[in-house]
Amino acid sequence: MHGYNSVVTYRVGIINVTGYAGMESARLLWNHPAARIVAATGRSLAGKRLGDAFPHLASYDLEITPEIDADVDVVFSALPTAESAAACEPFIRSDRKIAGASLVATPGCYPATSILALAPAVDAGIVGDMAIVDAKSGISGAGRGTGGGFGYSEVNEDVSAYKIANHNHQPEITQELSALREGPRLRVTFVPHLVPMTRGIHSTCYMPLARQVSQSEVDAIYADFYRQSPFTRVTAVPPHTKHTLGNNMCLVYPKVDERNGMLVAVGVLDNLVKGAAGQAIENMNLMLGIDQKAGLDFPALYP
Amino acid sequence: MHGYNSVVTYRVGIINVTGYAGMESARLLWNHPAARIVAATGRSLAGKRLGDAFPHLASYDLEITPEIDADVDVVFSALPTAESAAACEPFIRSDRKIAGASLVATPGCYPATSILALAPAVDAGIVGDMAIVDAKSGISGAGRGTGGGFGYSEVNEDVSAYKIANHNHQPEITQELSALREGPRLRVTFVPHLVPMTRGIHSTCYMPLARQVSQSEVDAIYADFYRQSPFTRVTAVPPHTKHTLGNNMCLVYPKVDERNGMLVAVGVLDNLVKGAAGQAIENMNLMLGIDQKAGLDFPALYP
Amino acid sequence: MHGYNSVVTYRVGIINVTGYAGMESARLLWNHPAARIVAATGRSLAGKRLGDAFPHLASYDLEITPEIDADVDVVFSALPTAESAAACEPFIRSDRKIAGASLVATPGCYPATSILALAPAVDAGIVGDMAIVDAKSGISGAGRGTGGGFGYSEVNEDVSAYKIANHNHQPEITQELSALREGPRLRVTFVPHLVPMTRGIHSTCYMPLARQVSQSEVDAIYADFYRQSPFTRVTAVPPHTKHTLGNNMCLVYPKVDERNGMLVAVGVLDNLVKGAAGQAIENMNLMLGIDQKAGLDFPALYP
Amino acid sequence: MHGYNSVVTYRVGIINVTGYAGMESARLLWNHPAARIVAATGRSLAGKRLGDAFPHLASYDLEITPEIDADVDVVFSALPTAESAAACEPFIRSDRKIAGASLVATPGCYPATSILALAPAVDAGIVGDMAIVDAKSGISGAGRGTGGGFGYSEVNEDVSAYKIANHNHQPEITQELSALREGPRLRVTFVPHLVPMTRGIHSTCYMPLARQVSQSEVDAIYADFYRQSPFTRVTAVPPHTKHTLGNNMCLVYPKVDERNGMLVAVGVLDNLVKGAAGQAIENMNLMLGIDQKAGLDFPALYP
Repeated sequence: MHGYNSVVTYRVGIINVTGYAGMESARLLWNHPAARIVAATGRSLAGKRLGDAFPHLASYDLEITPEIDADVDVVFSALPTAESAAACEPFIRSDRKIAGASLVATPGCYPATSILALAPAVDAGIVGDMAIVDAKSGISGAGRGTGGGFGYSEVNEDVSAYKIANHNHQPEITQELSALREGPRLRVTFVPHLVPMTRGIHSTCYMPLARQVSQSEVDAIYADFYRQSPFTRVTAVPPHTKHTLGNNMCLVYPKVDERNGMLVAVGVLDNLVKGAAGQAIENMNLMLGIDQKAGLDFPALYP
Repeated sequence: MHGYNSVVTYRVGIINVTGYAGMESARLLWNHPAARIVAATGRSLAGKRLGDAFPHLASYDLEITPEIDADVDVVFSALPTAESAAACEPFIRSDRKIAGASLVATPGCYPATSILALAPAVDAGIVGDMAIVDAKSGISGAGRGTGGGFGYSEVNEDVSAYKIANHNHQPEITQELSALREGPRLRVTFVPHLVPMTRGIHSTCYMPLARQVSQSEVDAIYADFYRQSPFTRVTAVPPHTKHTLGNNMCLVYPKVDERNGMLVAVGVLDNLVKGAAGQAIENMNLMLGIDQKAGLDFPALYP
Repeated sequence: MHGYNSVVTYRVGIINVTGYAGMESARLLWNHPAARIVAATGRSLAGKRLGDAFPHLASYDLEITPEIDADVDVVFSALPTAESAAACEPFIRSDRKIAGASLVATPGCYPATSILALAPAVDAGIVGDMAIVDAKSGISGAGRGTGGGFGYSEVNEDVSAYKIANHNHQPEITQELSALREGPRLRVTFVPHLVPMTRGIHSTCYMPLARQVSQSEVDAIYADFYRQSPFTRVTAVPPHTKHTLGNNMCLVYPKVDERNGMLVAVGVLDNLVKGAAGQAIENMNLMLGIDQKAGLDFPALYP
Repeated sequence: MHGYNSVVTYRVGIINVTGYAGMESARLLWNHPAARIVAATGRSLAGKRLGDAFPHLASYDLEITPEIDADVDVVFSALPTAESAAACEPFIRSDRKIAGASLVATPGCYPATSILALAPAVDAGIVGDMAIVDAKSGISGAGRGTGGGFGYSEVNEDVSAYKIANHNHQPEITQELSALREGPRLRVTFVPHLVPMTRGIHSTCYMPLARQVSQSEVDAIYADFYRQSPFTRVTAVPPHTKHTLGNNMCLVYPKVDERNGMLVAVGVLDNLVKGAAGQAIENMNLMLGIDQKAGLDFPALYP
């Protein structure tokens, strides 16, 4: 925002505004200086006013429709991966006004967190081939449509692991980290956990060091890697997920366990913003050639 | 925001930025189109960078000082009532640039909620002299400096009442509601409760009806009363505190219990925004003659 | 427990052990000195081991069955009211070993809390005809089978009212309180709320006083009324729901608002114990003529 | 309980009943068939009735004293480690009635969880020298006396790591696991986290396998190791902390990540019971030669 005044307003459509990521796009775009939502779809609630379905979006004068029925410049698809591909196809084929890349898939919330935490170390070649990613996620990561299993009474006051070493985000983490350097693919053991909070991911990542490295050397590597990144900040102390609640920041913290020759790297973010809708808007900004921070420059909600 | 571009930027000082209401002012003012924080005080953390003390405010390039040491147009005081009066005195006496009222005290979060819930009914003369206000507050209402008694392990999974019929907000509620009509002062029984959440107040207010009134008549009275209010909305179903999380809205819902001749009126808001910092900014906007919604027009964080 | 050693062990069947009240019966009966569960039914999970379905009950060597297929002395039915009546019929008709009342319906969790809070005052004739019951309930009160609407992400950090002046527990409260005295039926306005915790009910009850009464007089009335009650305790300060977490206590606190001639009476309990399974076991003890406290005499879980 | 009737009742003193571990001892001992609390100390609250200080312990007819002033057979010391040693000295020197070991220090809650999760694998020699222990703890682990930093508003909806690779429990974990086998000491990287719940620890432990091992082989190793353990159960699916809420169970789950040659072992327990007071009572039972399960055999509180 701050000083940014767009002369153009892009027309945006949201596919599946009734899921958490879709409705979060709507929340964020309300204050975007260069984009305006003109259509929003959602099967189960089609025909309802957006503000009746979701009272926090009552400012929108918009009806949920089964399909995108307006002329749009940009489409956000918040469907599951496979369905999303099908839903986006017609828009990719039509003559789009925006230049450059016309389709961007944002990484999942788990990969985003762990890749941002480990990338500087992998890129600098200071770590070996093995990585352990122990991730703790808030419950909204499971989505809005999920039935039994995420009821308040059973999720509250509980921590549990799931899909141990068997989660579909593991290959994505492995691929992206491995692409940062030459040599064999990394061996990544990924274990996600559910913790009793609504938003937030905390990934604690472990990689044995490839050589002796001091804390100050690692600090310099991380600071340098993220110097130009408006939405990733390296912290001096272990970060809290709550310091990113509702905004687009990722906080990263590297720590050398000298006794054991181990790098511990923490990454935290809000799974619905930097892990989903915010990152998608950031990508839209880049694709449209406007300020990367447009609509995304605001503090987290704290406490 | 939306279309509002200020030609002037007012210089703001915050007294006690280290309390929850003070830091919330800083969060909200980051995106205000016509105001900029130039000084922020806080005794215990004076000398620290604002972003080191409170990482969600890391975007600010500001140091916490013991006193306001810059030239300011507006001062927000987030101290307790008595201390606040003393702290504001020097600024009231000096030659201020802003016209009209030079000092505004915003009501407490409990009075704001219950007054907004009951005002239309009292103003319309449809209720009697007696009111019961049963308020449920999130824990942040107790403030940041509070010691034992609000530790997570004991507050979590707990509801309790406190200061039953003995809270210092009771006279404020009584005075403001009584001022809305002629006749004797109201008799208000006020019971606050703590519930395990960080933000939010839910006031359930009960007043015996003075005459037979239908639900549709009450609906019309409420709709009419708040027709011009950008930050109070009458809802068609009982509102949730979470639908106001982090923004400046108050949601109000009136319900006639016909069998017992009782009006039940619910009001919900975020105690740190509409109940404190947001309302103060709204008042600043009015005092400065700028758009009442400037800097405050954004959706709640949901879920 | 303490000193109680039964010479007989009654055989117990639980109908619908898969609901929260049913499984809570199983939790509590594990340590009952005179009762042993020999059958437990549940449609959706019939055929499963009890401990596989609910790991906290792994000590039981029991399979969930579609119907009660063992010889039983006592049956707990944890079905919804209407279904429960049908399910219990065969057991009432058969020749039961237990004397006296052969069927006891325990009151719902909301009525239990508010009746216990107000009964001494109504019984003593110190209050008028009007009552307001503002109840705050943990989410487990909604039951285990409930679908959408009680998902963690949306219930967490939220308070809301529901079924305002329209809840099916209102007539039960009215009936039981009215039966405590002569004169017209009470007019009870009942408003339940959901608060973000798993267990616990906090009922704040308001009744205008019929005459001037001092706090010490009310204290004496309440102390006297509950002198013989092992599971209701009058407290000297407002009670916390957490002080009853997991056990069979109801804590009651009366407070006179002298300025307004109003009695405020608070009652708190665990909705799944004193509000459901614990109370049922207490009734079983009384029906069987054994120690009323058998199996129910243990402290709450705190913190 | 169940069938256990002690002919002797041991007299117990609790040092520091006002801390969470101390008050949890009192909660658990209420139903112990062979022990009775006769004295309980606590500096800050000396002179108060136990039930006035902690309403969930209102059943006790006991006053908190500055020192243990009664004749006792057993003493539980719930002070911090260093203070505890000094406080226990007089009791070790006096002529005690109990045979065998007269002083037992129970491990901390973090070591208990991770040692129980990894011991079978280390003992069987199927893992290498390196271990990563990623532990998630509820807030009560920080103790009752802790000041700022654990206030509800800031801990709620937050996850954070602390003392990364620098926690005082790391050496204890290393020592106990290394003692299970010959060869060099293990290299253990230990990272504790705080998650927003009151009770519970979830330790996710990672050790590279020393040789190829199948899941069924690991399952057999774990089942065999804990065959005789009444309070450790190996589960078939990842366990939830909530399945141990308030009781003395530790649930353990081993999983082979075959692709990466990694063992992932999860351990969960209630930090105030199996991680503190319950384990101490279990040790008392063993020292006194009575049933190991006496007073500790009851289901967890769920949900």
